[in-house]
Amino acid sequence: MNIIEIINKKRLKQSLSYEELEYAFMGYLENKVESYQMSSLLMAICINGMTDEEIINLTDIFVKSGDCLDLSSIEGIKVDKHSTGGIGDKTTLIIAPIVASCGVKLVKMSGRGLGITGGTIDKLESIKGFKTSLSNDEFIQEIKDINMAISSQTDNLAPLDKKIYELRDVTGTTNSYALIAISVMSKKIACGADKILIDLKVGSGALINTKEEALKLADIMQKIGNHFGKETKIIISNMSTPLGKNIGNSLEVIEAMDVLKGNINSDLGELIILLASTLVSLGKNISYEIAKEEVLKVINDGRAYNKFLEFVKYQHGDISTLAVSQDTIVIKSEKEGTLKEINAKKIGEVSMLLGSGRQKKGDDIDHTVGIVLNKEIGNYIHQGDILCTLYVNKVKNDFNINEAFIIE
Amino acid sequence: MNIIEIINKKRLKQSLSYEELEYAFMGYLENKVESYQMSSLLMAICINGMTDEEIINLTDIFVKSGDCLDLSSIEGIKVDKHSTGGIGDKTTLIIAPIVASCGVKLVKMSGRGLGITGGTIDKLESIKGFKTSLSNDEFIQEIKDINMAISSQTDNLAPLDKKIYELRDVTGTTNSYALIAISVMSKKIACGADKILIDLKVGSGALINTKEEALKLADIMQKIGNHFGKETKIIISNMSTPLGKNIGNSLEVIEAMDVLKGNINSDLGELIILLASTLVSLGKNISYEIAKEEVLKVINDGRAYNKFLEFVKYQHGDISTLAVSQDTIVIKSEKEGTLKEINAKKIGEVSMLLGSGRQKKGDDIDHTVGIVLNKEIGNYIHQGDILCTLYVNKVKNDFNINEAFIIE
Repeated sequence: MNIIEIINKKRLKQSLSYEELEYAFMGYLENKVESYQMSSLLMAICINGMTDEEIINLTDIFVKSGDCLDLSSIEGIKVDKHSTGGIGDKTTLIIAPIVASCGVKLVKMSGRGLGITGGTIDKLESIKGFKTSLSNDEFIQEIKDINMAISSQTDNLAPLDKKIYELRDVTGTTNSYALIAISVMSKKIACGADKILIDLKVGSGALINTKEEALKLADIMQKIGNHFGKETKIIISNMSTPLGKNIGNSLEVIEAMDVLKGNINSDLGELIILLASTLVSLGKNISYEIAKEEVLKVINDGRAYNKFLEFVKYQHGDISTLAVSQDTIVIKSEKEGTLKEINAKKIGEVSMLLGSGRQKKGDDIDHTVGIVLNKEIGNYIHQGDILCTLYVNKVKNDFNINEAFIIE
Repeated sequence: MNIIEIINKKRLKQSLSYEELEYAFMGYLENKVESYQMSSLLMAICINGMTDEEIINLTDIFVKSGDCLDLSSIEGIKVDKHSTGGIGDKTTLIIAPIVASCGVKLVKMSGRGLGITGGTIDKLESIKGFKTSLSNDEFIQEIKDINMAISSQTDNLAPLDKKIYELRDVTGTTNSYALIAISVMSKKIACGADKILIDLKVGSGALINTKEEALKLADIMQKIGNHFGKETKIIISNMSTPLGKNIGNSLEVIEAMDVLKGNINSDLGELIILLASTLVSLGKNISYEIAKEEVLKVINDGRAYNKFLEFVKYQHGDISTLAVSQDTIVIKSEKEGTLKEINAKKIGEVSMLLGSGRQKKGDDIDHTVGIVLNKEIGNYIHQGDILCTLYVNKVKNDFNINEAFIIE
């Protein structure tokens, strides 16, 4: 076997065998295949696609490239939840305590943000002292003790995914259903949960822009889940508009706490109920309706919020103060009319430029900055009404954020 | 502008502007764009193709990436000839002295061989003392003095082509009409001749395997030539069967001298007459028929052969002895029947493995080894007849060369 022949086959839209995929990808992980050869193969995959068999085989190779978490010492059904990422997506912070306080074990390894998309680990790190890097033993013990844990992904969990993801990011090869599905599902499978919920974001603020693409991706993810014997549910949710009101790290933790306190009459609240109820239904093998009742109960009686406090304390966080920049820029409307759209992509870009996100891997971020939206889609806006407030720090610029608000 | 956006455009089969192509390719030459980014872009080009405008623009960028040879001090029309390469292709060694002895100025920068394809410079280096690396001044003076010169390509002639070619070779991106045409034509344009003849090889022993592909490539090359104001002729010739009887470096020089002495009743002889007459017709602005008469005359009266001797001496070569290995393996037929095919690719591979070619750039080659074919297509073969003789040295193996001879 040789790498040039393998690349040439995919260039000619032929299928690769398990052995050929293993030779190429494990060869890359072991530095036997060069990055310029892997990127050429990745581009051929992006354009010419992969068969279902190739996708399942490559997922298996990704999973086996590192360790799998052994959760057998934790009793009962373990569930895992993944969102494909978007603007203002603080759902994990809210759902995890809800599900855990319903008695379901939630296993969650999270990532850091890149580009306009935030990451749960960054959000948690805005809490003073919060420990995001847990050993496998600490992670498992926490789930046994309080039904949930959120940790940054350990280095040896699907290491091939990490290396390929980094290369895709700099070679214009992020846009492939096959590669996205393999990346998400290989990590979930290696994490060891029994059942998986994928929150697939679609819209201007997401990696996937159209419903049609999302359905294609959902189909592939479902097939992978089935193959590996993991019950997998996929919920497609909208990411044309930012999720909730707050964008930025501390600001999103504040909003998450607000929702946990019972403030659920919003689009964010609706999505939270949907996702949490689905997870509880999976974890307890009960109907969605019964699960939903339990979810509403733990929010209303304060158990979900208390679980959040318990979780933060367990991972050494001090929630008594959250640092938010006191330097603000108030953005007022120049137009009058109905607010038709808040462009998620534009909002995400401005938030990143203010310092809340990374333009490239390894960049420092500022947990204290971000954006708070003051209006919702459908609101009637008068000239001079406040559309949003920017929380700024070193970078003091409004980056023409008015453009994000379509008022007609 | 940024490289990821440029790669993404080509992934989506969109055209790139002159500025975008320049940003990507010159960026790569100047080490601002990484090799893994360029290989990803090259693969997108291989699969999604380029428009004629993109091809012409990228050729221009290749040409301008280095120096162009200024041949204005040489009087008259300067012609250049290029072969896309094949097995046993010693045509340059034969044509150049013929054309020069007809009074036409032949400008020829040549390359080294790679893979199963030999290179003129390697063949000339089998001549003791022969100097293949000339300065621009030496090169020009030689053309003024004896109407011809053959030199290895200088480093600053289309340096982008050199760097891209090396990357394509190791990333499965050699197979693109656009990239092949740009590579060949940019070097020819930078070399400064007024008129260009391309000998486009098609068949199992060539980069281009079918007539259809060859016609497509010829069309693109013609368009590039026209755009740059260079009269360009393209001759498509067969490379299913090795060209001539000898394959290997010294062995090919010996055969070239044999043809120059008047031994032209063969497929090789026919091709030589066709190419040389076309060049003389271009160089003197005369009809092909009149040019052909001149070509036959200089072969028959010994002027072409004497020109070869003059050229070798001018570049410090000593042709009195040529080293050929005395260790031979005689290959006999195991079958009886008519010789239907001699597979050029297989013959090329065996010759390379014996040591006459390079498996990868920078490998040493052995000028003394190779293959001499003893039979021609159409010959009736008896069991035990000699098919060919291998000239071996360190590597003593027949590599199942019998397979190359299809006898039915």
